[in-house]
Amino acid sequence: MRWIRYTLQGQTAHGMLDEDDRIVPVAGDPFGVYEKLPQRLALADVSLEVPVVPPTFYCVGLNYTKHISAEGMKIPNKPDVGYRANNALLPHEGEVIMPADAMRVHYEGELVVVIGKKTRDIEVSQVADCIFGYTIGNDVSERNWQAADRTFWRAKNSDTFKPMGPWISTQADIAAMRTTVSVNGETTTAFDTADMLFGVEEFISTMSRYLTLYPGDMIWMGTDGHSPDLQDGDVVEVSLTGLGTLRNRFVRTKKI
Amino acid sequence: MRWIRYTLQGQTAHGMLDEDDRIVPVAGDPFGVYEKLPQRLALADVSLEVPVVPPTFYCVGLNYTKHISAEGMKIPNKPDVGYRANNALLPHEGEVIMPADAMRVHYEGELVVVIGKKTRDIEVSQVADCIFGYTIGNDVSERNWQAADRTFWRAKNSDTFKPMGPWISTQADIAAMRTTVSVNGETTTAFDTADMLFGVEEFISTMSRYLTLYPGDMIWMGTDGHSPDLQDGDVVEVSLTGLGTLRNRFVRTKKI
Repeated sequence: MRWIRYTLQGQTAHGMLDEDDRIVPVAGDPFGVYEKLPQRLALADVSLEVPVVPPTFYCVGLNYTKHISAEGMKIPNKPDVGYRANNALLPHEGEVIMPADAMRVHYEGELVVVIGKKTRDIEVSQVADCIFGYTIGNDVSERNWQAADRTFWRAKNSDTFKPMGPWISTQADIAAMRTTVSVNGETTTAFDTADMLFGVEEFISTMSRYLTLYPGDMIWMGTDGHSPDLQDGDVVEVSLTGLGTLRNRFVRTKKI
Repeated sequence: MRWIRYTLQGQTAHGMLDEDDRIVPVAGDPFGVYEKLPQRLALADVSLEVPVVPPTFYCVGLNYTKHISAEGMKIPNKPDVGYRANNALLPHEGEVIMPADAMRVHYEGELVVVIGKKTRDIEVSQVADCIFGYTIGNDVSERNWQAADRTFWRAKNSDTFKPMGPWISTQADIAAMRTTVSVNGETTTAFDTADMLFGVEEFISTMSRYLTLYPGDMIWMGTDGHSPDLQDGDVVEVSLTGLGTLRNRFVRTKKI
């Protein structure tokens, strides 16, 4: 099943996509009780939104060895999760705005896990039961700011720096997915979820020892490989096996 | 004006406090259009909640020189904001749960600024206009985890590690407030907002160059001084001039 979030006539709502990519609107809450409504909508007639706005936005910084080497970091010895900010979220097909002083903007294609139920103190074997579904994220990063600032506030959380979507798939074979990133149609990065240092189950189980996860919380699972410095007008596509493709154009603004 | 958030008979709502500390329920949105309702409620009859749950939870890590020296950090040369997580929020009088493996739990008393309107690209002189009000936060931290982990995920964001409240005051003289922290009634830390390295106006104006602030977003403004290692049963009170007192008992659990 694929869940989307969309805006039509000023109203934002959740819906499902059927096999013909028509929207099936629902009444109720995708994370709780809901009911399909009889009408069908065309994707072209709505504005797609990010499929969920999380109560807390988790992101795994370093989880694949090639990316860690490329960034000159040490290999982590345990799953310490980080955070990102909701202001930066951007839907599929939205434009990533690169401020005039953002000189080294990179993509980071990532698997995104969305939590489905209130979760605390679970074992690795129980993790699958707390997951709502999976989507695609692009953890856009400005490397000069990442190096110069004490935190990731603007390097990773400037407005539009967190494209996500297009939808949440409720099923995926997360141990055997390939992530492929292309710039203007040419593949520039490809890697496998099987190469994660710490998997989805290990992260969520460890986190749940100290904190409660809530429906809609999401965890971006980290990236591998290295991005070129993106240029004005570049179109970046992030594809994950079975999840589809997240596409966004990068646009430079004159404003600093 | 003082705004609270409370639960009564399973319903959570916003309300105001009148001069006699009675709750004035409101219909509508404190950040938008609202109307006072005629009934009055006693504080003793409701469960107090944190006064707001933010879309994004910002926190200034290092903003007073004595605290920076105590933690062995370098003095920042610009206002780089950090993040905290909503799962950790705890109301006034809630119990801070210290896991059995949390050996060095410290308080950090802080001024909290709550944003009132959608804000982007503002000058220092315009910041006052975007602020909804002020409350008190305790940025509870476990120092061993803070040193050992790659991020602050459990050191600062374990469940119950972010007490906040009791209410949001819509007015405060933020340049001239004294923060006083006591443990079991004895003052252990006191410092002045006038000693911030970077003030509220400078932080918000700088942040707004790269990101949009939304109604309900909040910024914890950092702390000064040094906390003792807190013990099972300790009661910590954080008071700020004109804002009142945030009080929480710290309780050790046997669970790791």
